[in-house]
Amino acid sequence: MKVKDLQQYVRSRAQLIERALEEYLPGDDVVPEILHRSMRYSTLGGGKRLRGILALTAAEIAQGSSDAALPLAAALEMIHSFSLIHDDLPCMDDDDWRRGKPSNHKMFGEAIALLAGDALLTRAFYLLTRLSLADDAAVVNIIAEVAQAVGSEGLIGGQVVDLQSEGKKVDRATLEYIHCHKTGDLITVALRTGAMVGGAGEELLASLTTYGRELGLLFQITDDILDVEGDVDKLGKPVGSDASHGKATYPALFGLEKAKEAAHGAAANALAALAGLGEEAWPLRELVGYILHRDR
Amino acid sequence: MKVKDLQQYVRSRAQLIERALEEYLPGDDVVPEILHRSMRYSTLGGGKRLRGILALTAAEIAQGSSDAALPLAAALEMIHSFSLIHDDLPCMDDDDWRRGKPSNHKMFGEAIALLAGDALLTRAFYLLTRLSLADDAAVVNIIAEVAQAVGSEGLIGGQVVDLQSEGKKVDRATLEYIHCHKTGDLITVALRTGAMVGGAGEELLASLTTYGRELGLLFQITDDILDVEGDVDKLGKPVGSDASHGKATYPALFGLEKAKEAAHGAAANALAALAGLGEEAWPLRELVGYILHRDR
Repeated sequence: MKVKDLQQYVRSRAQLIERALEEYLPGDDVVPEILHRSMRYSTLGGGKRLRGILALTAAEIAQGSSDAALPLAAALEMIHSFSLIHDDLPCMDDDDWRRGKPSNHKMFGEAIALLAGDALLTRAFYLLTRLSLADDAAVVNIIAEVAQAVGSEGLIGGQVVDLQSEGKKVDRATLEYIHCHKTGDLITVALRTGAMVGGAGEELLASLTTYGRELGLLFQITDDILDVEGDVDKLGKPVGSDASHGKATYPALFGLEKAKEAAHGAAANALAALAGLGEEAWPLRELVGYILHRDR
Repeated sequence: MKVKDLQQYVRSRAQLIERALEEYLPGDDVVPEILHRSMRYSTLGGGKRLRGILALTAAEIAQGSSDAALPLAAALEMIHSFSLIHDDLPCMDDDDWRRGKPSNHKMFGEAIALLAGDALLTRAFYLLTRLSLADDAAVVNIIAEVAQAVGSEGLIGGQVVDLQSEGKKVDRATLEYIHCHKTGDLITVALRTGAMVGGAGEELLASLTTYGRELGLLFQITDDILDVEGDVDKLGKPVGSDASHGKATYPALFGLEKAKEAAHGAAANALAALAGLGEEAWPLRELVGYILHRDR
């Protein structure tokens, strides 16, 4: 596969993940129907599938098959979907739009949205138990790493600090805590556990961990920048919502130019982390520029 | 241990579980402190620990050590706590009191309560990966069974149908769906996975499954009855809240006398399911009368 084909690579992996999600989510004719409709509404048919794709790519780099990593990729996307549904609730960010359509609670009501998020998180852990690896200890380790990345000192911890920082002037350390955990932990664990499916050793895991942290930072900084100067039609959600919520962001703390410099710095660090990897890591290298220059 | 000592048995097991929870929950000095305070507030220092005790007892019946089952017991109690926190939220049952103290969102606000529930659910799955069994495949199976019991066709599914039934006249099948899943699935899986920690075979698992379903039904019917004629001081929460919410309950559907008959029927069925088990199953036998006659 040619290095230039990143868009095609991303598209084909996203399709694989979409089909896996379609299969692994209960059908909307299964009781209770409204819950399964709600889970499917927010998980299928949209999203960049960044976390799932990273898991598949890492599995391939570790010489595993991306097929074996599909339950993992789907589980990570369900967890991402859970976090977005709960994030959008009125008691949290109170966002009415997500991916160009009404957010889950606008469609199904708050109670069903809450429970759909809970059920997606639970389903993700169930799916991880379906990973078919030679060594069950590896399955247990993967579940443990995912749970730590999501938990009170991971994604959820990042959400809490983000919420507590609204409308306050935060310092750089707090902003980095939020970015590292709210976005970075799930991205990093996608790479690590994908590689674990492929049977990776410690050295590859260490490189992917560093890459994941820098990519997560890059992703969050560009997300902040898009909220300032992005195009509402491409984003599928309003711009300026961070500022109106008094959110801690890179542009708010350092100004737009310094934020862009920070994005370029994270991109360079991400590439440097891959220095010891061969040609097979090309999608990870290409992804850095893709995210640095993304418009949605 | 004498058969008559059920109260002492329950008390000693509840203390073991309390200590395990104390150890397995992050301290309230760990960042983000407010989240860990919130998780500990709703999980420590209260509750009957029914699910955790059932797991320990089942492990002992299956000739395992109850020590090995402690992470499982703690995980089940964290899941129970997650479900109560989310259940009490304004968009759900909107209950201000729980176990004699303000509910989580009254103490910490809705956003932290939501995230504390999410984090407890996640922490429970992490804890399950810490189970130290000879066979990692058994750990994976335990995680899968717990996830199914909690998920969209288990506890969470039961919550959804319960919510949808509020203020409506429901039939017996719907009421049984709610009871079976909202309460029964977690109780049944506590017994099954506890026995799996002890290395139980299919026959014992089948007996415990039947017992668990009947005990769950008994527990829910007596819960409904207590909400009609219980003592507010002993319950630590207001009575009559089911009726004021138009909830589907046994007394509402069949009247108080028929509800009590149904409780006695479930008790008899639960005891019958244990017929093939020996003396070591005495706590499960005693528990039936204990729940049938409980006042809180």
